[in-house]
Amino acid sequence: MKPQIRLLGLDDSPFDLEDKTVLVIGTFFRGGKWMDGVLSTTVQVDGDDATYQLIQLINNSKFKPQIQAILLDGIAVGGFNVINIHSLHKHTGIPVIVVVRKMPDFEKLEKTLKKLGMGKKYVLMEKAGTPRKIVLKGGEIHIQAAGISLEKAEKIIKLSSTNSNIPEPIRAAHLIGAGIIKGESKGRV
Amino acid sequence: MKPQIRLLGLDDSPFDLEDKTVLVIGTFFRGGKWMDGVLSTTVQVDGDDATYQLIQLINNSKFKPQIQAILLDGIAVGGFNVINIHSLHKHTGIPVIVVVRKMPDFEKLEKTLKKLGMGKKYVLMEKAGTPRKIVLKGGEIHIQAAGISLEKAEKIIKLSSTNSNIPEPIRAAHLIGAGIIKGESKGRV
Repeated sequence: MKPQIRLLGLDDSPFDLEDKTVLVIGTFFRGGKWMDGVLSTTVQVDGDDATYQLIQLINNSKFKPQIQAILLDGIAVGGFNVINIHSLHKHTGIPVIVVVRKMPDFEKLEKTLKKLGMGKKYVLMEKAGTPRKIVLKGGEIHIQAAGISLEKAEKIIKLSSTNSNIPEPIRAAHLIGAGIIKGESKGRV
Repeated sequence: MKPQIRLLGLDDSPFDLEDKTVLVIGTFFRGGKWMDGVLSTTVQVDGDDATYQLIQLINNSKFKPQIQAILLDGIAVGGFNVINIHSLHKHTGIPVIVVVRKMPDFEKLEKTLKKLGMGKKYVLMEKAGTPRKIVLKGGEIHIQAAGISLEKAEKIIKLSSTNSNIPEPIRAAHLIGAGIIKGESKGRV
């Protein structure tokens, strides 16, 4: 695997309860080091359009031919706008890796989503597969993947987590989202 | 000089002729490598508030105690909203370095500004001092400085231009501004 592998990191921005939409930031990176582009789009808070909007964002990007993996910070953006990672992979042709920084209580999550009438979203989460634990210098995280083996996905995450226990493209997307929405990011993730 | 010197890079975002304000992005970097924070504010297109807004942005930032130099991409943001670099230095206590990527035709600029009734702005540009040419791997640029010698400023620019002929904090601020406003940045500066 080339150290300068091109990656797209995605993360949503902070939002308030009254917001209807949330800004999603994409960062196009060479390996874990150089940011060579920034993308942005919006999705509905707790909506169902994240998969579609991300497919559009990526398929319309001039960076697309170079992107070798899409890195997601969790499987949902804008609250419970859950991403269908298999669909995202299928319609872009690019492998998708989900970084799960803090394992959720799946039983509680299932109950909450069903209570909110969002049971279908839980199915999407289940379909993303059992998270695989990986150990980085800064701590443990879990990953899920579509269109790529978990073994290969682990290599990409390790290679791109150059600066912390989170891949640099996701860390940058997080800082940008916070800096744009709040006027100042909360520093290192 | 420490390679991990903390720098704040500032650049404005794309704007249309009908826009009244323009988004300005700040990136807080460790040397020329790691982005550890993002700031943002808005200034008036062709207005006079850039110096004030940047002083506010920096003085209210939690990163301020660490920032060892402010790097500007040209002396104006949002068209002709010219920054008083001596005032920016004085009111933040932080050295200011202006990167001039393409030397303007000063005579023409003076005429244009005077015709627009903005003669005072030309005085601010003049007060920033004669730009000093410096040679980087990727080409020549010019710099101006306030609160720091041009010799020391040159060292900071060379140290932080790790990836191109422009300091990395400015390059990142440019990519972010374009990516937020246009949905996609135009790639490497």
